[in-house]
Amino acid sequence: MAVIGFDIGGTKISAALYDKGHPFVMGKVLLGDAEGDGVLHIILDLIDTLLEDAGGDVSAVGMAVPGIWNEEAGTVWAPNVPGWIDYPLLERLLQHFSHLPIYITSDRACYIMGEVWKGNAQGCRDAIFLAAGTGIAAGIMAGGNVLHGSGGVAGAIGWMALNKPYDEKYKPMGCNEYYASGPGLVRYAREVLKELPHYSGMFRKNKNLTSENLINSYDQGDEVAVQVIRNAIEYWGMCIANLVSIFNPEKIILGGGVFQNAGCRFSEAIMTEVLQWGQPVSTRQFSLECSALGEMAGLYGAIYFALQEEKKQRFHE
Amino acid sequence: MAVIGFDIGGTKISAALYDKGHPFVMGKVLLGDAEGDGVLHIILDLIDTLLEDAGGDVSAVGMAVPGIWNEEAGTVWAPNVPGWIDYPLLERLLQHFSHLPIYITSDRACYIMGEVWKGNAQGCRDAIFLAAGTGIAAGIMAGGNVLHGSGGVAGAIGWMALNKPYDEKYKPMGCNEYYASGPGLVRYAREVLKELPHYSGMFRKNKNLTSENLINSYDQGDEVAVQVIRNAIEYWGMCIANLVSIFNPEKIILGGGVFQNAGCRFSEAIMTEVLQWGQPVSTRQFSLECSALGEMAGLYGAIYFALQEEKKQRFHE
Repeated sequence: MAVIGFDIGGTKISAALYDKGHPFVMGKVLLGDAEGDGVLHIILDLIDTLLEDAGGDVSAVGMAVPGIWNEEAGTVWAPNVPGWIDYPLLERLLQHFSHLPIYITSDRACYIMGEVWKGNAQGCRDAIFLAAGTGIAAGIMAGGNVLHGSGGVAGAIGWMALNKPYDEKYKPMGCNEYYASGPGLVRYAREVLKELPHYSGMFRKNKNLTSENLINSYDQGDEVAVQVIRNAIEYWGMCIANLVSIFNPEKIILGGGVFQNAGCRFSEAIMTEVLQWGQPVSTRQFSLECSALGEMAGLYGAIYFALQEEKKQRFHE
Repeated sequence: MAVIGFDIGGTKISAALYDKGHPFVMGKVLLGDAEGDGVLHIILDLIDTLLEDAGGDVSAVGMAVPGIWNEEAGTVWAPNVPGWIDYPLLERLLQHFSHLPIYITSDRACYIMGEVWKGNAQGCRDAIFLAAGTGIAAGIMAGGNVLHGSGGVAGAIGWMALNKPYDEKYKPMGCNEYYASGPGLVRYAREVLKELPHYSGMFRKNKNLTSENLINSYDQGDEVAVQVIRNAIEYWGMCIANLVSIFNPEKIILGGGVFQNAGCRFSEAIMTEVLQWGQPVSTRQFSLECSALGEMAGLYGAIYFALQEEKKQRFHE
């Protein structure tokens, strides 16, 4: 029996078929202009294709959604997927595949499950995936259980308060995300540029101002890049220190678009911050690592989630 | 069958006998000059007394220890109990009471278990006890499970990084605890007094400088008290906002010496901070409450812990 996994993103949908004896079979579809039910139909088509690949022999579907999964209502709130505001995803899927057990959860929950299953957190019961990209979020496993919170919103560390006093500019996305997400790097670069009227480097040109370029220009000593990345390292370090003091984890895994670009390049500098700020016993007990699965973490996690939920079902039967 | 509960503190030990049909029978013993094995003997005597009270009919002992409970090693690291640095508490207890199942865990874990069992978090699966006293720590229940972390150090929110850049003065106790614990209020009052040479209020006298007096003088508008408490409210608010963004809990319970003095007096001001900083969906989903059990929270929690562990044992048999 095979399992189907999905990682739904704001621009693309990845899907895979997993069978114990076989490697993944995968598909990736760009969302394009699809909205609401249009996104659903891309998913339905992918399920059809993968069911065919598996000769119909599929026991469950696991799905990672970007945003808040409201388990009670069966709805998804995913601001990056057009038309998915309290979208009744489970009901719509079951209208077409009533015979298939379908398990849905948040993408960040899947990231840490993926790393625990097949990545750099194998064997851990206390581990956190820190995803920094367009936003900042954490997938958290504590004592062997993935955290969801009372309303499915756990892990919203983009909102971590790290720099008092409060500033109205944090309102749309939170203090941590304001500075330390991908768009945050660009945002802070704009602030820095204003304070450096004599700077004539590459970031004077607006089109060069991307988080990827800022990360890559740090090693060359570009004045703007150095200020922006140093500031971000302080935020990443404080954020990780807080997670370490709160959770006393074995590992924290760096992932998401920002760390796919940066790799482990800043890990040492981040650890210096963590060791200053964090609870000293806990900071010695954890290690900081980069994601082994990169942008596949969510897909691996969705498959693992389906396998785990299946196992629970069998246990209760 | 009765259950014995213990709450070990740095100055006193509280113990209780709990029987389903009967209310608590309690004892409290000051530590005095007791150290290491001396503290153990107070505990042993209390167990003897309570065993006698119960006619020998005791099924388990639950114990809350102040600091780190290393479950693997069976040792306690409790800097406030003289001589209890990696103290082999479980082994020593079992030397005297080999027939008694004894369950030990951290005091902060017991605080939240107490409130979930008999206090203001009844029925919650996601709830946090914020204890502000000599130190600051959190007892955290997430998804129905109490967090311990990989080395028993979870919940060390005194180390929460809230005010960049890093300052060496945070090193002994963490940034949050530096300002927002009981001694932190006094510490910050000293800083404020230096900046107010013309102030001639009650806090000019060193002997008046206690966290209790600072809390009680806030309503009278004392200049030092107002500055100190406003600063603490900012820290408490940011700390709680971070817990809310990370855990998406139903309730956060304020307890410990500071909030036993302050009561719910600052709750509204703290909530104003929380609503600014925290993830907006999660901040709307939680409520901030004061401890219903006060300094009894640890004792209730230790009893509940023993009852729960007993149930698990029976389930496995």
